[in-house]
Amino acid sequence: MKDPHTLAGHGPMAQRKELKQERAIRSRENILLAAAQAFAQRGYPAVTMLDVAQLSGMTKGAVYFHFTNKEALALAVTTEFYRRLPAISDAVAELGLPPVASVAELLLRTAAALRDEPMMKAGARLQIERGLIDVDLPIPFEDYTALISAWFHTALAAGELEHMTPPATLARVLVSAFFGAQHVSWVLHDRADIIERTVEVLHAVVPCTRDPRHLSPFLLGHLSV
Amino acid sequence: MKDPHTLAGHGPMAQRKELKQERAIRSRENILLAAAQAFAQRGYPAVTMLDVAQLSGMTKGAVYFHFTNKEALALAVTTEFYRRLPAISDAVAELGLPPVASVAELLLRTAAALRDEPMMKAGARLQIERGLIDVDLPIPFEDYTALISAWFHTALAAGELEHMTPPATLARVLVSAFFGAQHVSWVLHDRADIIERTVEVLHAVVPCTRDPRHLSPFLLGHLSV
Repeated sequence: MKDPHTLAGHGPMAQRKELKQERAIRSRENILLAAAQAFAQRGYPAVTMLDVAQLSGMTKGAVYFHFTNKEALALAVTTEFYRRLPAISDAVAELGLPPVASVAELLLRTAAALRDEPMMKAGARLQIERGLIDVDLPIPFEDYTALISAWFHTALAAGELEHMTPPATLARVLVSAFFGAQHVSWVLHDRADIIERTVEVLHAVVPCTRDPRHLSPFLLGHLSV
Repeated sequence: MKDPHTLAGHGPMAQRKELKQERAIRSRENILLAAAQAFAQRGYPAVTMLDVAQLSGMTKGAVYFHFTNKEALALAVTTEFYRRLPAISDAVAELGLPPVASVAELLLRTAAALRDEPMMKAGARLQIERGLIDVDLPIPFEDYTALISAWFHTALAAGELEHMTPPATLARVLVSAFFGAQHVSWVLHDRADIIERTVEVLHAVVPCTRDPRHLSPFLLGHLSV
């Protein structure tokens, strides 16, 4: 006869199972972070499953238990990257800023994350190495561009965007310029000047971001330092 | 006693030597082009010296005779890339266009070369894979940016550039946007839309490029198609 506690999911066996699952989740997160650090620093082709095991302090068997191969690791890191980008834009949307300020805030927060977070650095690097990875990674640029385009449409409708370029085109150009600026900053200065370059891009491509009405919290913080 | 023709450098021995040198130069060019095609298509880490030999129709020994290793091949292809960029800008300078039109013409010719020429495609790909190549490649972006900056300075002094952004900053932003646009075009459409994206960048980042005064020959040709 079964223990009623176990049936209710709170008996000692269920507790052990929960504990085991929690440990498995933590192990997977450790491995993923180690993989992100390795990919960000040395690039996909140079990293082995053994490197990831050693860096995460796990056995090679544990790494293979969670990830079939290096492609699966690259896919998991990139998937995490594409979970964080909308998390950044959701957080910006919650601030309820005017649309042009929202675009500025989104780019600046993304820039800081690309400079500071291993998962973001790794996602960016894996995306430019996608041709070397034998797995289908999510298509880059399009969702991010669509989001910025929607904000520019709203700004135009509200009379807050003065630009000769239509919103969708302006979004495409801004994303190209931002991607380019973060890449140049990475290659020349390991992203130390990414915020300055992002501000330059915003001011030059969308001049009305200079207008005090469109100042975003990140930019205010940056300017007051 | 030596044949006087040989002494003059036109005897049969000298001719054989010249022929041999010409053949060596042609071999080296074949190998370099094959390497460029392989790097452009599959990326540096995926290509072997044997691949380059097979693609060029030469023996592996011949490839190693000209290039010590794969790093030497990558360096030679990149060096050729950095010979072609100034060749493009020299050709543009010879047209004697106004400075803003010169910048537009330079970007559009560079875009077309990146779309059409294996050596340019390879150079661009090797530059983004530079972290995976164990040799010092030339520093990217800086010379190209300096050149554009100089044209913008001239334009400003001549009253032909109306922009709130100073020339050097505008050049930095334009190069970021152009680099980004060609990269996005490469990833999403194998550069099929690189000209359209470059025109978008020019118009959005340097609005006065819309002015008929600043139309460049390439843009005219593109618009009239």
